[in-house]
Amino acid sequence: MSDRDRKPPFRRAGGKPFEKGRKSGFRPARRDREASPDGPVILYGWHTVAAALANPQRTIRKLILTENAARRLADENIEISVTPEIVRPSVIDQRLGPDAVHQGLLAEAEPLPSPDIEDLTQEGIVLVLDQITDPHNVGAIMRSAAAFAVKAIVTTARHSPEATGVLAKSASGALEMVPLVTVQNLARALNQLNDLGFLTVGLDSEGTEALGAVTLRQPLALVLGAEGKGLRQLTRETCSVVARLDMPGEIKSLNVSNAAVLALYIGASKLGLMG
Amino acid sequence: MSDRDRKPPFRRAGGKPFEKGRKSGFRPARRDREASPDGPVILYGWHTVAAALANPQRTIRKLILTENAARRLADENIEISVTPEIVRPSVIDQRLGPDAVHQGLLAEAEPLPSPDIEDLTQEGIVLVLDQITDPHNVGAIMRSAAAFAVKAIVTTARHSPEATGVLAKSASGALEMVPLVTVQNLARALNQLNDLGFLTVGLDSEGTEALGAVTLRQPLALVLGAEGKGLRQLTRETCSVVARLDMPGEIKSLNVSNAAVLALYIGASKLGLMG
Repeated sequence: MSDRDRKPPFRRAGGKPFEKGRKSGFRPARRDREASPDGPVILYGWHTVAAALANPQRTIRKLILTENAARRLADENIEISVTPEIVRPSVIDQRLGPDAVHQGLLAEAEPLPSPDIEDLTQEGIVLVLDQITDPHNVGAIMRSAAAFAVKAIVTTARHSPEATGVLAKSASGALEMVPLVTVQNLARALNQLNDLGFLTVGLDSEGTEALGAVTLRQPLALVLGAEGKGLRQLTRETCSVVARLDMPGEIKSLNVSNAAVLALYIGASKLGLMG
Repeated sequence: MSDRDRKPPFRRAGGKPFEKGRKSGFRPARRDREASPDGPVILYGWHTVAAALANPQRTIRKLILTENAARRLADENIEISVTPEIVRPSVIDQRLGPDAVHQGLLAEAEPLPSPDIEDLTQEGIVLVLDQITDPHNVGAIMRSAAAFAVKAIVTTARHSPEATGVLAKSASGALEMVPLVTVQNLARALNQLNDLGFLTVGLDSEGTEALGAVTLRQPLALVLGAEGKGLRQLTRETCSVVARLDMPGEIKSLNVSNAAVLALYIGASKLGLMG
């Protein structure tokens, strides 16, 4: 509430609270996210690789491009920090498999730093994901999070997909924009958020109130569970409120990334964050 | 408008306007949707198969179940129209591949009838999909359509995924609830919708107005294009309005199923259809 009065929320195109924070006493991340225990982070596709190249915090180790993709990067004045290897599309096909829509770009990169819960600025919205395992869904959620200027996504180190490959592609560049806070224990993280003044709202079809009827305030944490399983019991108990999304049709639950974007829209609208 | 005055919209748990229509002079569908040119429609997963078994319009040819799944169907009093074949889970694994979460149920079924545009009731919301090819996305859109009591989904016969397998699984039963109208030519279908009195609203990040600012009315057709490509030019030109979804963050476009659910929520809210 007071946060909201103090500063115009989301005015500066969100998504980089940590960069901003760094200038004003931000502690550097203590631990790199293990984006891929067996190797580098794999990034492919136009938006994903272009956003990574534009992110000063992202270290690119290797860049494999088709001639067309190299030309497109040059046309759009996107700087390349490493000498690219120019290849035929089939070389990237072979590397990624036939289903990957890579658009002629493949990068191997270092994982991004994972900030800590205590480093979160106390404004706006964060998303908390409780063991959502499908990388397409988590990627789509990250993309929507960037679209709604979400400050960070909190996720568990285990039972979560790595921030690489399919997830990165589905996120369409959002991996570079929304910090991922990886925690060992989600209930402890939620307690920390509660202590930091966040209103923690779990979303569950069995929720006692409709999200639209809950009095929301900043900073707000929206907590989403896996499809089928929903929120784990301890997660549910640690949230300040458990709310449902009301819908008029026969089916009462949505794909989790669809539920996430709806919760973000309702949350951001109610908090006056729609810009 | 007059429709809205005449009857309480979406009161009867939507999704089955055609069943209802049939009793009052509905013309039977003239053509079966070619759900799979090479064979039957494949349905797997709990929600998908349970909804198909509950749908009197769906003909099940073959039902393969694990013992656990058979028991669960019995526990939930779901009637089985064919004699099931009880198998070990690995038999279904082999049939579907390792990535399919089948939960012990696999059905082979006939495709559902595809109604015609002229058979649509002139109320509520329909969704129109312009060459959205990813079956996960189309399935998630169908699921959200069922959640928002959408009257039908209009899609092209070509450049659209078959209503089987991954799409059916992602739809989580919605295939049985939302009629799919398959057309040869989308611009012609949009012209028909315009002639029938639908307000046809295309969604595009380059739209001239924000969807929230457009004066909406029933019957409403929301038109979505493929990711990356967006609406085709002729599609765009045939819509009454082209609107955008405004979002406050750095990324200005969403995963197409995320965009669909947001458009549905905004549309249904503005039309007073949220129940």
